[in-house]
Amino acid sequence: MIKVAVDAMGGDNAPVEMVAGAVEAVKIRPEIHVLLVGQEKVIEAELSKYTFDKERIHVVNASEIIATEEPPVNAIRKKKDSSIVVGMNLVKSGEADAFVSAGSSGAVLVGGQVIVGRIKGVERPPLASLIPTENGVSLLIDCGANVDARSSHLVQFARMGSIYMEHVVGVKQPRVAIVNIGAEEEKGNALVKETFPLLKECSDLHFTGSIEAREIPHGGADVIVCEAFTGNVILKLYEGVGATLIHMVKKGMMSTLRSKIGALLVKPALKTTLKAFDASQYGGAPLLGLKGLVVKTHGSSTRTEVRNSIIQCVTFKEQQINEKIRQALNTEQPTSPIS
Amino acid sequence: MIKVAVDAMGGDNAPVEMVAGAVEAVKIRPEIHVLLVGQEKVIEAELSKYTFDKERIHVVNASEIIATEEPPVNAIRKKKDSSIVVGMNLVKSGEADAFVSAGSSGAVLVGGQVIVGRIKGVERPPLASLIPTENGVSLLIDCGANVDARSSHLVQFARMGSIYMEHVVGVKQPRVAIVNIGAEEEKGNALVKETFPLLKECSDLHFTGSIEAREIPHGGADVIVCEAFTGNVILKLYEGVGATLIHMVKKGMMSTLRSKIGALLVKPALKTTLKAFDASQYGGAPLLGLKGLVVKTHGSSTRTEVRNSIIQCVTFKEQQINEKIRQALNTEQPTSPIS
Repeated sequence: MIKVAVDAMGGDNAPVEMVAGAVEAVKIRPEIHVLLVGQEKVIEAELSKYTFDKERIHVVNASEIIATEEPPVNAIRKKKDSSIVVGMNLVKSGEADAFVSAGSSGAVLVGGQVIVGRIKGVERPPLASLIPTENGVSLLIDCGANVDARSSHLVQFARMGSIYMEHVVGVKQPRVAIVNIGAEEEKGNALVKETFPLLKECSDLHFTGSIEAREIPHGGADVIVCEAFTGNVILKLYEGVGATLIHMVKKGMMSTLRSKIGALLVKPALKTTLKAFDASQYGGAPLLGLKGLVVKTHGSSTRTEVRNSIIQCVTFKEQQINEKIRQALNTEQPTSPIS
Repeated sequence: MIKVAVDAMGGDNAPVEMVAGAVEAVKIRPEIHVLLVGQEKVIEAELSKYTFDKERIHVVNASEIIATEEPPVNAIRKKKDSSIVVGMNLVKSGEADAFVSAGSSGAVLVGGQVIVGRIKGVERPPLASLIPTENGVSLLIDCGANVDARSSHLVQFARMGSIYMEHVVGVKQPRVAIVNIGAEEEKGNALVKETFPLLKECSDLHFTGSIEAREIPHGGADVIVCEAFTGNVILKLYEGVGATLIHMVKKGMMSTLRSKIGALLVKPALKTTLKAFDASQYGGAPLLGLKGLVVKTHGSSTRTEVRNSIIQCVTFKEQQINEKIRQALNTEQPTSPIS
């Protein structure tokens, strides 16, 4: 059995899609129990639309909501009865194994560190996102938690990402690469130049060197390591270029009578292909290195992403990822960082 | 009349495509004269394939070639008779107005600064690249020259980019934005937080605030300011995601008999649409802020990009961009940087 707390009030489509995703998750996986956190009456009204096993979805009341634009540190400190703070506390106390939220990224990141807390030895918990590639998926780490990170942080990101990719996604000996602006070791900014030799020394990693951004969509590495500013730019540009091109392809197909007829014939095949490039399939982004699991899903998440984010918590718990991270980061390594 | 020196030996497709692009350029624009720089015999052999106005294409011999993998500073210092050094010297001496090269990026950047030299007041010459968007093009500056740049550099990039976009591309009052990982002023890394208020104070700029990477392909700003590591990641990911998606669309269309028939009907319309998203249309990336014009084109440039890169030099000269940059950067501004 696994208990997942879900922020019913966070995200653009809350509570409708959050509740729907929770219902779908418990129907698909018998071991999942969900705690829907938020305003009780609102959630109950939403839940009344569905039939489901009442033993496996419970509501935990939280009267407040943290808005996206609120300064995160302040919000976490003051809104003790918000869905995010209450949900995080459920993880801290052990009443839940994981917390899934589509709410304020800043509040989720701050709450994860302040309330759930870091695993001993972890300097900075990174946000890790699976991104689609030509051959499957890669893990982009850090995609949003720690801007201006240091080289020792990046080494930890690489090690945590490698564990996640191997044991949650199932990639044996994942290839780890650092985002750079050229393939050669001497290329890069100060941070990359400092981090590169440290990664080379990590005997527990299959480090393959630099990866240029151009190679990311081709699946050039399994674990793509970067500082969060770069990672966030990559994540969002990925979405932006993808959306724009698909929009342009559709527009092009609708531009002449001939192409419209062609579009009808092409559509089913194209849908299957492009689905593979849809990030929402892969669930949310875990904040790694915490004493518990916190998963951030897109603010625009629909039930599918919510459902998949809940389901991904099962493998995380089964594979004891946190125990593996604890062991890896507390084992003596030549590059072991001192905070 | 404008004289453009072209590096006939640089790039993956040299000398064939470089020479072909030069021939095309002089045929299209009567005011263009080209100096093809490189190994005389090789160039003459290539030129003999074409008919063209012999008065308007001349060969300038340069016996050496700088390879992409050579350390740039060393290469520029030692290979005095390389096509890049000879070409840059033609600009320095005024025998050419501009130099176009598809060769080693590092050598072009170093050569531009060391041989051609900076305009007074310019701290760091940035590389500026036009990137396609849904609505036309935006200027990405700096896309590769100065990693670990400082805030005063970014302010200069914004001002030079704005001049380029207004007078070369013809966008009135270009919207200037800084790449960030959130829309709010307090978001970002240390560099962005420091640069944001400085840009706000620039009365000569139409500064619109932060731009998230997701909005770049939608044409969210005309001049997109960033430090070169981020800019290079954006440029290369743009190409990578675009290439991957187009590849996947084609694969999807070829997957069933039905879709194959549809593909035939869709093809012409789709080609027109996707051409608008092809970066090679827009010529190369100028290194702004030099006493002369240096344009870096893709290493993989074909004749079309070479031709367009040569033609873009005409507007640059006609509009006296360097004079405008000199005036703008030497006028007292509240944010005027001290090196």
